[in-house]
Amino acid sequence: MVDFKKAQEIINHEISALDFNREPKELYEPVNYILSIGGKRIRPALVLMACSLFSDQITHAVRPAIALEIFHNFTLLHDDMMDNSVLRRNQPTVHEKWNRNIAILSGDIMSILSYKYISYCPSGMLPTVLELFTETALEVCEGQQYDLNFETRNNIDVEDYLKMIELKTSVLIAASLKLGAILGGASLADADLLYEFGRNLGIAFQLRDDMLDVYGDTDKFGKKIGMDILANKKTYLILKTMEIADNKTGSQLSELISSRDFNPEEKINRVINIFDQLGIKELTIKKSEEYYEHALKTLDMVSVDQKSKSALKEFAMLLMDREH
Amino acid sequence: MVDFKKAQEIINHEISALDFNREPKELYEPVNYILSIGGKRIRPALVLMACSLFSDQITHAVRPAIALEIFHNFTLLHDDMMDNSVLRRNQPTVHEKWNRNIAILSGDIMSILSYKYISYCPSGMLPTVLELFTETALEVCEGQQYDLNFETRNNIDVEDYLKMIELKTSVLIAASLKLGAILGGASLADADLLYEFGRNLGIAFQLRDDMLDVYGDTDKFGKKIGMDILANKKTYLILKTMEIADNKTGSQLSELISSRDFNPEEKINRVINIFDQLGIKELTIKKSEEYYEHALKTLDMVSVDQKSKSALKEFAMLLMDREH
Repeated sequence: MVDFKKAQEIINHEISALDFNREPKELYEPVNYILSIGGKRIRPALVLMACSLFSDQITHAVRPAIALEIFHNFTLLHDDMMDNSVLRRNQPTVHEKWNRNIAILSGDIMSILSYKYISYCPSGMLPTVLELFTETALEVCEGQQYDLNFETRNNIDVEDYLKMIELKTSVLIAASLKLGAILGGASLADADLLYEFGRNLGIAFQLRDDMLDVYGDTDKFGKKIGMDILANKKTYLILKTMEIADNKTGSQLSELISSRDFNPEEKINRVINIFDQLGIKELTIKKSEEYYEHALKTLDMVSVDQKSKSALKEFAMLLMDREH
Repeated sequence: MVDFKKAQEIINHEISALDFNREPKELYEPVNYILSIGGKRIRPALVLMACSLFSDQITHAVRPAIALEIFHNFTLLHDDMMDNSVLRRNQPTVHEKWNRNIAILSGDIMSILSYKYISYCPSGMLPTVLELFTETALEVCEGQQYDLNFETRNNIDVEDYLKMIELKTSVLIAASLKLGAILGGASLADADLLYEFGRNLGIAFQLRDDMLDVYGDTDKFGKKIGMDILANKKTYLILKTMEIADNKTGSQLSELISSRDFNPEEKINRVINIFDQLGIKELTIKKSEEYYEHALKTLDMVSVDQKSKSALKEFAMLLMDREH
């Protein structure tokens, strides 16, 4: 069984050796750049870990695993452009370092390169793998469009939000695990259980991430507190507040979100004050834990011995204990 | 043997019946829009025509053919954004009609949808088809990057230009024919001959298109004359002039291209005057004809009876006789 650290090492080694060996350099330099500035390699590592649950051979899974990392970075590259973000992993984003046309086109080429790498899977598995990958890729783009829609829509509820983060974040984590399972020769039932494990874990992680934006320890979380609040992002915390608050508190929150009259610190403090009144932190943790528990239960049902699953369990703990 | 008109009918019928049946609508409306505002459906029609050279059955080729049309329109959508074009087929471009974020994301989803449709080919052919499609897709993006590079580079020669139009335009036409041949069960040798036919025909067509921008009959060509000159595009005509002109004439042309002091009509007339002095129209037609003749010779070598090839020959004539 390959653990997360070992899987990361294999992936990082493979990525550092990537050479697309193609021209023009204007197109491939940004690809090498975004792939080299880090990232935790969660998705490709999960492919290898899931594969090793069912097979001692994982070499054939490495390039399809890389496909998911290329695809993930393609979505980051284009998302950063859509969000006008200037930094990614503390480095300039591609459209900042080069320009928007190069960002569009090098993103496009990464999307195609991800298909190149997914195609390296054993040919007998290709139709199944391709269907999983394409469906997931469509869902990730759909999730991003919902996220863009939410910026201007005011009638979103918690359910809409959960659907959006499932598409934008969870399905790619779920698909990583399912892809690994397929490549390891798992039964469809086991592959689907691992998908469910990843889907629920991904949602649990995103909810926890929303909570940490407000209640995280800056030193450990590595980001400033309240950035989602300042960006008027409709996170789970905001939407849960809207759901359970009385009319007066709901109006206060709406005003805080829509108004530009507050200084940043004041705005953050006022929103947190409302969250605290309603116990939103605890409700978010509870919801996240529900998904997390469901993820672990699904993992338990996968038909390999429990000991082999320890690496995936440890990974799940690592992902959820980001604050500690 | 399916002719171009029949192939167009099949493709148009299929495209008008396309229903991706997915949400959110903000993402899929632009996809339906760009696919519905016309276009000659050359690439998917060539898939069907090439397939029918080798097989009476073409039904299985329809959805992979649609993949090439979706891919082609994806590149138009993103190229229009990079070029800041406001019109496509006399209709507003997607980034004009909606916005740039929607144009980025609906282009991204079309790239993925093209893979969805290419995957509908018979599974035994999938590895070969996928490799052809991915290599071609990478080349088309590389061609677009060269085209962008050329805008700011001044040391381009005719050879660079021919390489660029081969990648940006010809390889997708070539790949359409090869894909059709593969789906029809052709030998690799015949499939490669059809690829060469398409590659040469595509270059011939682009050179003729460059010539018609300057020397075309406005009524028949359907565009205003001299638009490439006003846009300072480094077409074959410009680069050939630079290659054969003496220093004085070369300097005159450089000045005309770089200066903003001329009114549009004067600029066009002066450039045409230089072309006329050097016989650039005739040289361009000659070069185009060379590629065209080479294309036809390659088609002759395909190992099916000559009568079956008449539809492709007629198509080639149609493409080249755009002025008449």
